[in-house]
Amino acid sequence: MGIKPLGDRVVMKALEEKEETTESGIVLPESAKEKPQEGEIVAVGEGKKLDNGDRVDLDVTTGDRVIYGKYAGTEIEFEGEEYLVISEKDVLAVIE
Amino acid sequence: MGIKPLGDRVVMKALEEKEETTESGIVLPESAKEKPQEGEIVAVGEGKKLDNGDRVDLDVTTGDRVIYGKYAGTEIEFEGEEYLVISEKDVLAVIE
Amino acid sequence: MGIKPLGDRVVMKALEEKEETTESGIVLPESAKEKPQEGEIVAVGEGKKLDNGDRVDLDVTTGDRVIYGKYAGTEIEFEGEEYLVISEKDVLAVIE
Amino acid sequence: MGIKPLGDRVVMKALEEKEETTESGIVLPESAKEKPQEGEIVAVGEGKKLDNGDRVDLDVTTGDRVIYGKYAGTEIEFEGEEYLVISEKDVLAVIE
Amino acid sequence: MGIKPLGDRVVMKALEEKEETTESGIVLPESAKEKPQEGEIVAVGEGKKLDNGDRVDLDVTTGDRVIYGKYAGTEIEFEGEEYLVISEKDVLAVIE
Amino acid sequence: MGIKPLGDRVVMKALEEKEETTESGIVLPESAKEKPQEGEIVAVGEGKKLDNGDRVDLDVTTGDRVIYGKYAGTEIEFEGEEYLVISEKDVLAVIE
Amino acid sequence: MGIKPLGDRVVMKALEEKEETTESGIVLPESAKEKPQEGEIVAVGEGKKLDNGDRVDLDVTTGDRVIYGKYAGTEIEFEGEEYLVISEKDVLAVIE
Repeated sequence: MGIKPLGDRVVMKALEEKEETTESGIVLPESAKEKPQEGEIVAVGEGKKLDNGDRVDLDVTTGDRVIYGKYAGTEIEFEGEEYLVISEKDVLAVIE
Repeated sequence: MGIKPLGDRVVMKALEEKEETTESGIVLPESAKEKPQEGEIVAVGEGKKLDNGDRVDLDVTTGDRVIYGKYAGTEIEFEGEEYLVISEKDVLAVIE
Repeated sequence: MGIKPLGDRVVMKALEEKEETTESGIVLPESAKEKPQEGEIVAVGEGKKLDNGDRVDLDVTTGDRVIYGKYAGTEIEFEGEEYLVISEKDVLAVIE
Repeated sequence: MGIKPLGDRVVMKALEEKEETTESGIVLPESAKEKPQEGEIVAVGEGKKLDNGDRVDLDVTTGDRVIYGKYAGTEIEFEGEEYLVISEKDVLAVIE
Repeated sequence: MGIKPLGDRVVMKALEEKEETTESGIVLPESAKEKPQEGEIVAVGEGKKLDNGDRVDLDVTTGDRVIYGKYAGTEIEFEGEEYLVISEKDVLAVIE
Repeated sequence: MGIKPLGDRVVMKALEEKEETTESGIVLPESAKEKPQEGEIVAVGEGKKLDNGDRVDLDVTTGDRVIYGKYAGTEIEFEGEEYLVISEKDVLAVIE
Repeated sequence: MGIKPLGDRVVMKALEEKEETTESGIVLPESAKEKPQEGEIVAVGEGKKLDNGDRVDLDVTTGDRVIYGKYAGTEIEFEGEEYLVISEKDVLAVIE
């Protein structure tokens, strides 16, 4: 991927929810769907830089499927795709 | 369980309150019931990572029944079930 | 008691104010009474855990009668009784 | 006094302002008087506890007449008298 | 002066602005004048106390004429005079 | 460039989005376009100064194309051009 | 200059924007002009004082032309002239 996040940030691709139609078959418009909370990490930073220059390694890595808070991070568009740049501390959990 | 919380977080399953009918026998709709404040911990993180890479062990563990504040944590849905991801510092007490 | 508070928290039982009738004999409804600010401590945590794993001992202990701020702490219900879970730093004073 | 404040707190008795009548002799109702900003300290805590267990001594002591900010502290009632529990850092000055 | 400020605070006497009449001779009522931002320091604290008991000396001293922000500090009345108690960090500059 | 940012700040030139006309050929007025989130760094500070006088080196350098949050930084005008002065910690990622 | 700012503050004289008339020759009233963001430093403090008494040297000095945020600092009037007292950390960049 062509984006390198800084510090303790990761770049994530939100995993689309599959149920786009209701049980009665009605297709839900985009705005009626809940924001996804699952994503796949596509790029990771080098970790928080300490004052002495050392880095704190991240606990997540590229390819991890993770759960994150609904309102965390910054949405960006890159080469026509939407991503979420988020600090690792706002990643709640890894799906194993 | 398939979710591994990060850092000092735990994943909790809220314990449903039993009284779903009032004394006069009326069934309370979901919205009229108080949010539960008791839960069972189903997964725990490795503990807060210090700048030197060490971890601070958690005081709670999987299987603990705990009490937490009404507005703490982030609700998530995983494989059709609802969970609460919460920082250990927002867990108020353990039921022994 | 069956509740073990975490960290620097204590569990308290509010001490009911006695004057439930006014001088003219009128019984005051619950909402017209001031929230009590005195309580008896029924359980204490092990104290704040430091990054090195040590604990900072609490200054209060089970059985202490204490004064606390009106808006501090989290009300919980446990086995049909109401308690207040409160951080020791929000306990103002001990009644001797 | 029967109250022992915790940490860096002190218990204070507000000094009543004397001018309860205006120059024209009208008695001012309680609500029209400014909140007093002077008090006499009636009890002091042992000082802020540091993580290593040491205490930071207070700069004020019982009997000191002090000036404090109008909105600082928590009003409590104890044995029928009103007091103010206030952190020493909200005490502005000592009257010598 | 009979007031000893605590910690890093100073007591200041606001310097009255002299132009109490406009150019056309109209006397401005008190509320139409800007709050003064200049004052003379009449008492100083012993400086911020560090956790080890040491003090950080103040950079200002009694008699200094200083400039301060319009909304900083707490106004007090002492022996019929109005003063401002202000933390040294809210004193912007000294007039030399 | 004639501007030297202080501390951990960088000066950035926003990269204009190219699609100024909609698919139907309508030219979008300035206000209807999203604020760009990509920029090119044109000047960098010496890094955050620590209390001991040392500097923490920046992770970005002049010429880097970066992504930043929509509401971060301060817009300035210099010699007729618009720039954004932004703290490095608000730079989300570098485009490689 | 007769003002000595305290700590990490500097005193600045805003540089007036020159275009006081529009292209059509209309003179703009003061309120319709943007607040300037450029200034010249006329006095500097001795730098932030650390708890051990040491100072952190400032990165700017008297005579520097600097850029600052629109809403930073405190406006003061001194001997009939208007100045801005601003913390060095709110100075964005130096114009070289």
